Amino acid sequence: MSEFSDAERNALYRAIALRRDVRAEFLPDPVGDDVLLRVLSAAHQAPSVGLAQPWRFIVVRDFAKRRAVNDAFQRANALAAAGYDDATAKEYRALRLAGILEAPINICVTCDELPARGRGLGRQTMPEAPRYSTVCAIQNLWLAARVEGLGVGWVSILDPAELRALFGIPEAVAVIAYLCLGRVSEFAAVADLERDRWEARVALEDVIDYERYGGA
Amino acid sequence: MSEFSDAERNALYRAIALRRDVRAEFLPDPVGDDVLLRVLSAAHQAPSVGLAQPWRFIVVRDFAKRRAVNDAFQRANALAAAGYDDATAKEYRALRLAGILEAPINICVTCDELPARGRGLGRQTMPEAPRYSTVCAIQNLWLAARVEGLGVGWVSILDPAELRALFGIPEAVAVIAYLCLGRVSEFAAVADLERDRWEARVALEDVIDYERYGGA
Repeated sequence: MSEFSDAERNALYRAIALRRDVRAEFLPDPVGDDVLLRVLSAAHQAPSVGLAQPWRFIVVRDFAKRRAVNDAFQRANALAAAGYDDATAKEYRALRLAGILEAPINICVTCDELPARGRGLGRQTMPEAPRYSTVCAIQNLWLAARVEGLGVGWVSILDPAELRALFGIPEAVAVIAYLCLGRVSEFAAVADLERDRWEARVALEDVIDYERYGGA
Repeated sequence: MSEFSDAERNALYRAIALRRDVRAEFLPDPVGDDVLLRVLSAAHQAPSVGLAQPWRFIVVRDFAKRRAVNDAFQRANALAAAGYDDATAKEYRALRLAGILEAPINICVTCDELPARGRGLGRQTMPEAPRYSTVCAIQNLWLAARVEGLGVGWVSILDPAELRALFGIPEAVAVIAYLCLGRVSEFAAVADLERDRWEARVALEDVIDYERYGGA
């Protein structure tokens, strides 16, 4: 039987609604291997072009490694702040944008852009497809973490070249994401960037078109 | 109370495990606006860099439009088949790779790569971040569809330029995905490409590294 009850449907919708991009709320509590493997297994069940499964997950617990990543984050963050006008830079600097040292586990997610697995299916027209498969895996991981009571934060303010050097990632392999993972003191009621008035949510009806693109 | 019960956790894991990339099993049964809006709302709750919410969803029901997309698929598919050696091309041609005409709803998913929303946060170091946010939305949609009993198929064998022309998508907007959505006769027990021996699944432990990249 592969149908879902109302309660099961609601469970998925709750996970989607209550998932947060966590930065400030990480706790140092250890994360067991069993739960880590469950969330990675959820990631690994994602769809992939040609069934190529082009992803790899580098689990990072070592503090020295995380400190090096955090240094890279600080550099990228300072550069990013310098790109804004004074008022916006002040707002930007007040944002909390990573929890690299606070989360006990970090995960660097990579993607083989020219995987032998999958035999090239779908890649002629959509060369980005392996990257997209890998992002589907990340979203699975994010939702699985949420129902396990684990927070995830995706840090995009990092120079991929620095991650490549730190983790020995070959040139042919794309760095897709750097994630922080851990128990949290709480899941925020709304997204941090909404609370901090960095950006407001757009209504669903404003992102739906019918039959033809209608955006600005 | 934002914790998940064992039953709720299992519901998410079931949705992840039972999600399929559907091609052959679509039914012509209509899909109501209520359920369509629920799955689009799930997509719209995805994480996005800077809270930019850079996605748009073009809902396509018009048969003439879907026929034009299907023609484009046939052309791209013939080209793709021609790129393989004879034995592989024979295997490739036997695969069922789209259900564009059979699924009553298609959804073309686009992404503003330089969104004003989000004020550029995270884009300096990771310019692909808006695309990745959009793929997170697609994976939310895919899982929501599964618990609603709706199949989704992602057709990557399409020239984005043809979709751009058909739907009036501006040059500055990226075409991320073309999805087929509809009720299904069944959800296959295993992935089509696994059943058809196009590719085999790799073990989870073979895609996990610790502290350093260890792939080939």
